[in-house]
Amino acid sequence: MSKNLTKRSEDYSKWYNELVVKADLAENSAVRGCMVIKPYGYAIWEKMQAELDKKFKETGHQNAYFPLFVPKSLFEAEEKNAEGFAKECAVVTHYRLKTDPEDASKLIVDPNAKLEEELIVRPTSEAIIWSTYKGWIQSYRDLPLLINQWANVVRWEMRTRLFLRTAEFLWQEGHTAHATKQEAIAETEQMNNIYADFAENFMAIPVIKGRKTESERFAGAEDTYCIEALMQDGKALQAGTSHFLGQNFAKAFDVKFTSKEGKLDYVWATSWGVSTRLMGALIMTHSDDNGLVLPPNLAPIQVVIVPIYKGEDQLDQISIVANELVMDLRSKGVSVKFDNRDTHRPGAKFAQYELQGVPLRIAIGPKDLEKGTVELARRDTLTKQFVEKDQVIDTVVSLLSEIQESLHQKATKFRDEHITEVTTFDEFKNVLEVKGGFISAHWDGSAEIEQKIKEITKATIRCIPFDGKEENGVCVYSGNPSKIRVLFAKAY
Amino acid sequence: MSKNLTKRSEDYSKWYNELVVKADLAENSAVRGCMVIKPYGYAIWEKMQAELDKKFKETGHQNAYFPLFVPKSLFEAEEKNAEGFAKECAVVTHYRLKTDPEDASKLIVDPNAKLEEELIVRPTSEAIIWSTYKGWIQSYRDLPLLINQWANVVRWEMRTRLFLRTAEFLWQEGHTAHATKQEAIAETEQMNNIYADFAENFMAIPVIKGRKTESERFAGAEDTYCIEALMQDGKALQAGTSHFLGQNFAKAFDVKFTSKEGKLDYVWATSWGVSTRLMGALIMTHSDDNGLVLPPNLAPIQVVIVPIYKGEDQLDQISIVANELVMDLRSKGVSVKFDNRDTHRPGAKFAQYELQGVPLRIAIGPKDLEKGTVELARRDTLTKQFVEKDQVIDTVVSLLSEIQESLHQKATKFRDEHITEVTTFDEFKNVLEVKGGFISAHWDGSAEIEQKIKEITKATIRCIPFDGKEENGVCVYSGNPSKIRVLFAKAY
Repeated sequence: MSKNLTKRSEDYSKWYNELVVKADLAENSAVRGCMVIKPYGYAIWEKMQAELDKKFKETGHQNAYFPLFVPKSLFEAEEKNAEGFAKECAVVTHYRLKTDPEDASKLIVDPNAKLEEELIVRPTSEAIIWSTYKGWIQSYRDLPLLINQWANVVRWEMRTRLFLRTAEFLWQEGHTAHATKQEAIAETEQMNNIYADFAENFMAIPVIKGRKTESERFAGAEDTYCIEALMQDGKALQAGTSHFLGQNFAKAFDVKFTSKEGKLDYVWATSWGVSTRLMGALIMTHSDDNGLVLPPNLAPIQVVIVPIYKGEDQLDQISIVANELVMDLRSKGVSVKFDNRDTHRPGAKFAQYELQGVPLRIAIGPKDLEKGTVELARRDTLTKQFVEKDQVIDTVVSLLSEIQESLHQKATKFRDEHITEVTTFDEFKNVLEVKGGFISAHWDGSAEIEQKIKEITKATIRCIPFDGKEENGVCVYSGNPSKIRVLFAKAY
Repeated sequence: MSKNLTKRSEDYSKWYNELVVKADLAENSAVRGCMVIKPYGYAIWEKMQAELDKKFKETGHQNAYFPLFVPKSLFEAEEKNAEGFAKECAVVTHYRLKTDPEDASKLIVDPNAKLEEELIVRPTSEAIIWSTYKGWIQSYRDLPLLINQWANVVRWEMRTRLFLRTAEFLWQEGHTAHATKQEAIAETEQMNNIYADFAENFMAIPVIKGRKTESERFAGAEDTYCIEALMQDGKALQAGTSHFLGQNFAKAFDVKFTSKEGKLDYVWATSWGVSTRLMGALIMTHSDDNGLVLPPNLAPIQVVIVPIYKGEDQLDQISIVANELVMDLRSKGVSVKFDNRDTHRPGAKFAQYELQGVPLRIAIGPKDLEKGTVELARRDTLTKQFVEKDQVIDTVVSLLSEIQESLHQKATKFRDEHITEVTTFDEFKNVLEVKGGFISAHWDGSAEIEQKIKEITKATIRCIPFDGKEENGVCVYSGNPSKIRVLFAKAY
């Protein structure tokens, strides 16, 4: 495995693309726009899944599974949804191939196997789920209905990038139904908070919580909450969204319930999701010119032990120490790998684990055996230290939590340094050009101005932050009065 | 929730269909042949997934994710695979819908968005995976490659039944690559053994391990191993398969490796899978006329506590005892639910949990409070006992493992009683008609005879059992000499 990564300062985008492939996270497939998630990348995704799934279940959600296909008519039922999503999508029109009568080595679509109604490969599942909920919800006793689905979805994107924008991606989508508006709004908030907590405390990614403007909202939502992260190149990345859907879907699919008081009403809905895009956020928050840097919480291998040896005898002796460390570390819940492959030299192994972001590396050579020490190297700081053998376990355990914390702090510092308050539009453009990051600016609330700023600068309103304080000002573009600052940025 | 299940003796098929829906496991969706797996059903599937995933990882496999779509040309590359699978499948021909110019409320397929090459929704992933492996495998150092994928697949089945045969289903598919034939065969065996162990010891389903005849083999396999279970109605169900693929896919996709000795050769392959069909096997092995019966290992709720009370005061007092039991049981790893809903009467709750197969039910009423006891009811035997409060935890823990064991024994006894050795074809037909089950008969090894027997009786050769002993005999149909008995049955 060769390093030779492009430097971030040279070409951030190229660095990202190379890193994803060289660190064995994912690659492009034979299918346009669809990725293969390789075992190492998938192992990180599994850790995200496990933690999120736990948080969902702790808050009373259950998993279920709904069909991959959505009949075209279901999209027609919910106009706004159709406008937003049902356009660029994979359409199944036939259900059979047959051998080409003119060339037996070829397959052709059987024209006699045309579907009566086309099926859309789900770009999101509101339509199919709400058509199902109609049969599940009659009374207040059936509410709240708190369901999540882990699934693949397909959106026919023209320009794709591994993890960040792919035609097929993996995600979870929560779809809940409630008796009251207040309860649905509380759920929308709760899930956005869960995403924020997960990003900050598990992925070590600082995020800003806020709501989207109307033009950035999910089609069919009355309100979209989000968490916005900042990548190292100064571009923002939407890391998760939680939508208050009002009664839109209930009305489109006629989902009513009888209240305790015997009144019939439409139910209130939310939906919320995060996707394999988070892999992109992870990479672009922590990694460096040497490769991936992983927070210990997400590292498939937290500690790797590499033996430095000449001949079988030395390896045997090192293995005794190494295997003992493996056992002791595992008993502390640390995931550890002893890489005793004789097909690769230590240098190649060092390079591989650096590239793949393994948080701690232990090297053991003959001199270490003599001195009763090991060499312990930290991936995030690239620092090394010698540690007494009987101190290794404690040192590793405490370093892992230190690294987790330190990555979060470093990313938070970077993010905070890249939120710039501006007053004039010249300042706005200048900061965006020179420094990037979030620009905190007054905006008059008009979609037209938002659009103009976007056209001129390519920056969009990432969110209206929840923690924004009221402040009298004037819109950075129109000069109209404004009460609150919003965050602009160029975004992934 | 109404019971009113059709009795198994009246109409087994109807009983099954009703049970799946009434026990809240799954239901048909708005998409022909596709099911919705409801939260309770999905929770059972998640338990299967977790246990299998652990077993796969313990044996060195890693998960990955490959695209949903397979370009048509990749199927053409592997002829046998194409013959077997690429025919009845969902075909994506377009990538965009647009608003109907004649009716703005309708969507139509945009004729300008036709794909150059049609995409098949994966019916299985050998083709896409082996086209990917070509880039991953160069040397013996890259082998073995041991990968599993959890995914949805689609096969355009004409007649569908919930869990047993659906157009879309969930499964795992392992795809491994090896340097030698022996190693690939050993992997094929290992995975079939893992499936058998999982079925027997986790699902309490007895299975027979064997190999498929050539005509029942997976298209493209050189050998197919399987586990075959027997349902209560005397029909067999293939519960898992493991395929030795030889060098077929390596040749079709040109996947070669350089051996330690520097020789270039095609790699050897296996694939193996189990699916949501296992849910059908689970239901039809253990359940009864009252509803679902779940082995404790698979029960989302192992113990339910139902309070019997009049008024808030009684409920409060019962809740103290119940909550203590909940805590103590959870600390022993038992999943327990205290159902204190005031929207349902105890009778309705009893009926629901019986229908849903919760292994143990604890009822606590005011008399129990006085006497310091609880009423403990077993779902599998429908027996009840009173247990002293301080004996509840131990009794529950030991009953759960007793139930697991007892279900396995009961199913094994039934299965063993339904393996009938026959000598003549009249006997064969008679046993199949009157008793069902597996028919152990001599067969001369000819595909033609196998086909004739199938045409006459609808029974197929489920497998050539691995534990069959050599025995001189004559084929039950042709009278030709035969060395071994095979197992025939009608099958799901």
